[in-house]
Amino acid sequence: MSNTPALLSELAAILDPAGLQTGDAIDTRFRKDWYAPLGNPPLAVVRPRTTADVAAILAACHRHGQPVVPQGGLTGLASAATPGQGEVVLSLERMRGVEEIDEQAGTMTVWAGTTLQAAQEAARAAGWLLAVDLGARGSCQIGGNIATNAGGNRVIRYGMMRDQVLGIEVVLADGTVLTSLNKMLKNNAGYDLRQVFVGSEGTLGVITRAVLRLAPLPSATQTALCALKSFDDVVRLLRHAQRALSGRVSAFEAMWADYYTLVTTRVPGVRAPLAAGHPFYVLVDLQGSDADADAAAFERMLEGAMESGLIVDAAVAASGKEAESFWKLRDAVAEFPQMWAPNAAFDVSLPIGSIGRFADALRSAILERWPSAELVNFGHVGDSNLHFSVHLPGVDAAAFPEAEIDAVAYAIVREFAGSVSAEHGIGIHKKPYLGNSRTPEELALMRTIKAALDPKGILNPGRVFDPA
Amino acid sequence: MSNTPALLSELAAILDPAGLQTGDAIDTRFRKDWYAPLGNPPLAVVRPRTTADVAAILAACHRHGQPVVPQGGLTGLASAATPGQGEVVLSLERMRGVEEIDEQAGTMTVWAGTTLQAAQEAARAAGWLLAVDLGARGSCQIGGNIATNAGGNRVIRYGMMRDQVLGIEVVLADGTVLTSLNKMLKNNAGYDLRQVFVGSEGTLGVITRAVLRLAPLPSATQTALCALKSFDDVVRLLRHAQRALSGRVSAFEAMWADYYTLVTTRVPGVRAPLAAGHPFYVLVDLQGSDADADAAAFERMLEGAMESGLIVDAAVAASGKEAESFWKLRDAVAEFPQMWAPNAAFDVSLPIGSIGRFADALRSAILERWPSAELVNFGHVGDSNLHFSVHLPGVDAAAFPEAEIDAVAYAIVREFAGSVSAEHGIGIHKKPYLGNSRTPEELALMRTIKAALDPKGILNPGRVFDPA
Repeated sequence: MSNTPALLSELAAILDPAGLQTGDAIDTRFRKDWYAPLGNPPLAVVRPRTTADVAAILAACHRHGQPVVPQGGLTGLASAATPGQGEVVLSLERMRGVEEIDEQAGTMTVWAGTTLQAAQEAARAAGWLLAVDLGARGSCQIGGNIATNAGGNRVIRYGMMRDQVLGIEVVLADGTVLTSLNKMLKNNAGYDLRQVFVGSEGTLGVITRAVLRLAPLPSATQTALCALKSFDDVVRLLRHAQRALSGRVSAFEAMWADYYTLVTTRVPGVRAPLAAGHPFYVLVDLQGSDADADAAAFERMLEGAMESGLIVDAAVAASGKEAESFWKLRDAVAEFPQMWAPNAAFDVSLPIGSIGRFADALRSAILERWPSAELVNFGHVGDSNLHFSVHLPGVDAAAFPEAEIDAVAYAIVREFAGSVSAEHGIGIHKKPYLGNSRTPEELALMRTIKAALDPKGILNPGRVFDPA
Repeated sequence: MSNTPALLSELAAILDPAGLQTGDAIDTRFRKDWYAPLGNPPLAVVRPRTTADVAAILAACHRHGQPVVPQGGLTGLASAATPGQGEVVLSLERMRGVEEIDEQAGTMTVWAGTTLQAAQEAARAAGWLLAVDLGARGSCQIGGNIATNAGGNRVIRYGMMRDQVLGIEVVLADGTVLTSLNKMLKNNAGYDLRQVFVGSEGTLGVITRAVLRLAPLPSATQTALCALKSFDDVVRLLRHAQRALSGRVSAFEAMWADYYTLVTTRVPGVRAPLAAGHPFYVLVDLQGSDADADAAAFERMLEGAMESGLIVDAAVAASGKEAESFWKLRDAVAEFPQMWAPNAAFDVSLPIGSIGRFADALRSAILERWPSAELVNFGHVGDSNLHFSVHLPGVDAAAFPEAEIDAVAYAIVREFAGSVSAEHGIGIHKKPYLGNSRTPEELALMRTIKAALDPKGILNPGRVFDPA
């Protein structure tokens, strides 16, 4: 157990005065991430400036058996970064900036505390695309994006954060610095250690720096909204578009009728490019480099889909401004926490062909239990990722049965061999349901890896899973 | 230590008679992989038919502390699968076949012993592309492709084998079966365990089955051979082509003048589409779905490169047959082991911008030590992967100083912060040089992971690295 005064004086010796907060001086912003309630006061907040600081902090905490909660931009949706009482918060926010953009290699080397948006803008200024993108871009940090294997709207073309990470620098639980800043697309020299840390939610090491892969910056985008009759047609359109637009489908977002109606009637500023009442809507994007040729290819793809009856209506954005207004349909989810509170929001994945049947089964189960419930389905269907939200009109936050709704939904995820987390992670919030998507053997192996890398269990303890 | 008679009788009880070979009955084909000399006789060869067999075999070997060498198609170039005396060979060759192609999910579930070519053909017959491709396709097996994280010619567009693996079934050292046959592109439910096994060269588990991601089958290909003045221009052409052909550059193979001259003058059936004497040649492919539009885009890309002086000459294949003849330039490497024996062949990677200077430094160092040496450079430059071969005319196999050539080359790899293995793996062959590309902290963490997953050290012991 920790000898608190001794540890605090060791931390004070490592950090400049602005780098250490304790007691009443702790800023409340370090006590919660998105959607989590304010947690109990941590023991301290440390804000290192260098990898050497992080190493010294972890070495000290390791000696004292002191739990440490790494924090990025605090935009996580699974409460992995909300500290518990007596834990030490390790914020990466002062370790920020783009260290290098290598134009020949097509890579950028970034400090973990850099916001995604700052990294995206630096890449763009150099003529490149950092392809991972998500709504929290202005606040979320690269280290957190890696630790949670962030997803977003462009995964269908560019992959998840894991696929952008070529190299990593990470400090292990005992303070060992692992500098593995590889810039190569191919490197089979032994185990691929970066993979161990991507998506481990701060439980295996603290990421301090990374080498990210950049993509050629697209110079032209085509966007359409399509209306479809059935979920099977949604999947057929996905495959048709991917074949017809070889390599260039850059978003494929499905919306069920319930979602389309909700956002076009309730969210201010969202207009309906197509009539309501169709069972499904799909927003599809092509990113390319030749506006005329791309537009022709996009039109041929849509004509083919129309002729074969795959789509029953479509609107093509005539300008970038109109494309933005189409995207508001999808971005309207950012308003749900306010306009539709309280609601339970989900991020699951399923084999693509099962998503339609899953959504039907979910709706039936929710309505059976809560007949007045409102439920909307939408998601990155091209990536096998379904989001849905459940709202109970007239039920206030205190009475909202979130845990019961979770239990109903995740039981159906288990039936359909899906994942309880597609892109948001497990954290604390989904920990009770990890076993719905992972076998006992898988959970045992996760614990084996955790015990090997963090034998004292000081890194983000109790997140993702509990010790054996 | 193993109680041999007891172990052999346990193995005999698990397997049918054709599944177990011992003593003089052991077929010599199990005693070597490509390029390795015939190894000493193993204790036994086991050829299970089911995952349950594999589990029972490993449980028995684990109890007895018996080393086990997993074998796929035996086409590896790093001797990871050549057994040592007294080891048990576990061949996956009887666990083969495609279990399922899920047309909606775009996945195939395959047994580990399936050849890559059989899997590719099954995918193609269903209208899909299994994108990883390499020369050994007819012999190499999916399990080995995963265990070595195979690369090949299409990595620039589709990624390595790691990027095709969505789910995995693997038997751990103690016989525990880990069935993790995920079909989803996104799954952040806890640690991504499949990553631990991909590229681990049989040292952490025995892969029995996998779910592979399929890509839309391209229906049209454009191929050109370009001549260039400098390596910097090769990199500029890469970026120019990737921007101009957004998402569709599907191969980018560079050949130095020495390579081009060698294959066009010495390998029968290889013709020279462009004159010799240019410093660099690049073979570039576009895969797409609209032959006319693709050809126009490809031509515009090449015209732009010609106008800006990036390329000094180019030949565009007018037919699939001509494209094949262009590819013979690259595939001619398959003849090197015979026509240019003995030679030392390399598979390294470097930050792309450094590859030109690396090749120059390597040539100088080799010629300084062996003034009569012949050396050719070529490779998947778009993936940061350089291959080179060194031949000493008039030196016979017995006198060929392969270890000395390795030492010279891998010292330069270290200087340039490159990797001693881009795609072939480490096995036994490159083990002495793993430290040239990995830090002591990285090696220590690899050993930590090995010890956690295989505490008795029975899985492919002594491959990749030695125990601490």
